[in-house]
Amino acid sequence: MKKWYEKAGDQGDIIVSTRIRLARNLRNCPFPCKLQKDGMLKVDAAVKDAVLNGNSAIAGEFDYIDMGSLTQTDAVSLVERHLVSPEFASDREGRGLLLMKDESVSIMINEEDHLRIQVMQQGLALDEAYQMADHLDTLLDERLKFAFDDRLGYLTQCPTNLGTGMRASLMLHLPALQDSGAMNRIAGNLSKLGMTIRGIYGEGTQPKGALYQLSNQVTLGLSEQAAISNLKDIALQLVAQERAARETLVKHVETQDAIGRSLGILLYAKLLNNDEFMKLISNVRLGISMGLIDHISYDQINTLMIEAQPATLMKHAGKNLSPSQRDQRRADLVHSQLTH
Amino acid sequence: MKKWYEKAGDQGDIIVSTRIRLARNLRNCPFPCKLQKDGMLKVDAAVKDAVLNGNSAIAGEFDYIDMGSLTQTDAVSLVERHLVSPEFASDREGRGLLLMKDESVSIMINEEDHLRIQVMQQGLALDEAYQMADHLDTLLDERLKFAFDDRLGYLTQCPTNLGTGMRASLMLHLPALQDSGAMNRIAGNLSKLGMTIRGIYGEGTQPKGALYQLSNQVTLGLSEQAAISNLKDIALQLVAQERAARETLVKHVETQDAIGRSLGILLYAKLLNNDEFMKLISNVRLGISMGLIDHISYDQINTLMIEAQPATLMKHAGKNLSPSQRDQRRADLVHSQLTH
Repeated sequence: MKKWYEKAGDQGDIIVSTRIRLARNLRNCPFPCKLQKDGMLKVDAAVKDAVLNGNSAIAGEFDYIDMGSLTQTDAVSLVERHLVSPEFASDREGRGLLLMKDESVSIMINEEDHLRIQVMQQGLALDEAYQMADHLDTLLDERLKFAFDDRLGYLTQCPTNLGTGMRASLMLHLPALQDSGAMNRIAGNLSKLGMTIRGIYGEGTQPKGALYQLSNQVTLGLSEQAAISNLKDIALQLVAQERAARETLVKHVETQDAIGRSLGILLYAKLLNNDEFMKLISNVRLGISMGLIDHISYDQINTLMIEAQPATLMKHAGKNLSPSQRDQRRADLVHSQLTH
Repeated sequence: MKKWYEKAGDQGDIIVSTRIRLARNLRNCPFPCKLQKDGMLKVDAAVKDAVLNGNSAIAGEFDYIDMGSLTQTDAVSLVERHLVSPEFASDREGRGLLLMKDESVSIMINEEDHLRIQVMQQGLALDEAYQMADHLDTLLDERLKFAFDDRLGYLTQCPTNLGTGMRASLMLHLPALQDSGAMNRIAGNLSKLGMTIRGIYGEGTQPKGALYQLSNQVTLGLSEQAAISNLKDIALQLVAQERAARETLVKHVETQDAIGRSLGILLYAKLLNNDEFMKLISNVRLGISMGLIDHISYDQINTLMIEAQPATLMKHAGKNLSPSQRDQRRADLVHSQLTH
């Protein structure tokens, strides 16, 4: 079965993926941070039961993963595949994960909240992802009874999630805007509009791979539909700005050179560390959108960007690898993925 | 007709080319540095007549080029193709060049000596090149009467050429020995044996492209055959040392990586300056010898190394080019030569 990130998406030249995340808690049960291990296990069992043993259409779609039984490598690989948060992977006792077989839906149990329902889609797919999340929310609420207050909405451990409990995010590839130095200004403007944008890999002004996450900040006093609509409007403005910046860049032979070299190195290197890989693959992604590279698809790029991450590399190798061994395996993987 | 450098040669993995050069002067005529323009023109006319209007087999093989009528670009391109010396190209008045159609033989008229007969061959071909030079020498001596002293041998302007007037040279590609830091020691040892070795492109310890010229120094008291035999023995020792150093290098993934990246950049870059080009093409040449690259031949490399030089690029473009335009055209040339 194809993973969600192996399918092409709308506005895929710039919008890599869409994520909807709902924070939910069980009624009459303390938040996870207030639970002992037996309390956490009870929550875990209840959620697991609701998903896997419910008579709903979704029961057969999910696998359950006991986080406490995972190796560090397998846990970090889940982070690299954007299925769980780094915090969830680092402290695994009493936590569980329900994972849809195509990895498009994950339900973290006992993260900051009892449930974090997350739906991922390729490209711009806010409405589809929200519908899926809403559908799951409805099904699970019938069995689990979520904590809800008529005035505050869904109750969450952190007040910034109160209300809808929804965080909608888009992963954007913004190399041309980053290159133009516009990102700081853009981030400042977006925060006034109740949005945040930040680098996905690495903090600072030049995130690795020029990948940014744009998210809504406001969850209180605004419907899910309104939040999603705002996010989409702003994302499409950023997409237009990025496309305009790319049109200027593509005319420069220096850009064409940098993109060509990036592809050449990816195809022929025998050692690739992750930082360099992210920089090169970002250039190749840009090259595809500019029509400079025509035999590589966004799906291939998106897949590689996940498969080439350190823990996921080791997971596929079935053993721990030294940094140098990883660099070698990454180069081999990139070569084989881009040439077949 | 294929140029001499477009044909493969013996020991071509390390010995790029062979050159034999004979210095000859006309009897009863001052050396060129002592001649006025009319004197130079008389020498030029005499040599030209001897080659082109002689009833020998060679008459139809040569073209005559009046150096004084050349543009700077065309003159420098002759240097890049190793057909004339830089000094000969920079001060062109009263000088002429006889050039065999495959460019394997050039006769400079009024260089430091009245005639400099030069024969170039691909790979290790000292005997063949010397036979050709000797054959021309014999034919021309019949008509021109060269200055010869029974005790000193051929008379030349510079006493370092007295005797045979012969300089035999091999162009060697020595990236592994260069990389190992052995070149200074080797150069010191060779000078004790009456040989010199020096970088062809750029002075210093790291010549561009790891290309070295190995030549005999002694022209007096030693026959041509003995000088050639010594040079060949020493060259084959260097070849053996370089091959051994390559065998060590090829085991390192870092070497394989550097070679792969060099090929990748050469194939995909849109801008290549000459220094980088020389470094990359040297790595690719090394990669061919190591069996890491199998679809590119030494001939292609040797041809590119000449065709990608600045003046030769402009000559083929038919116009002057800015450095940036040259870098672009060089990248295009490399791409098309290495992919067809």
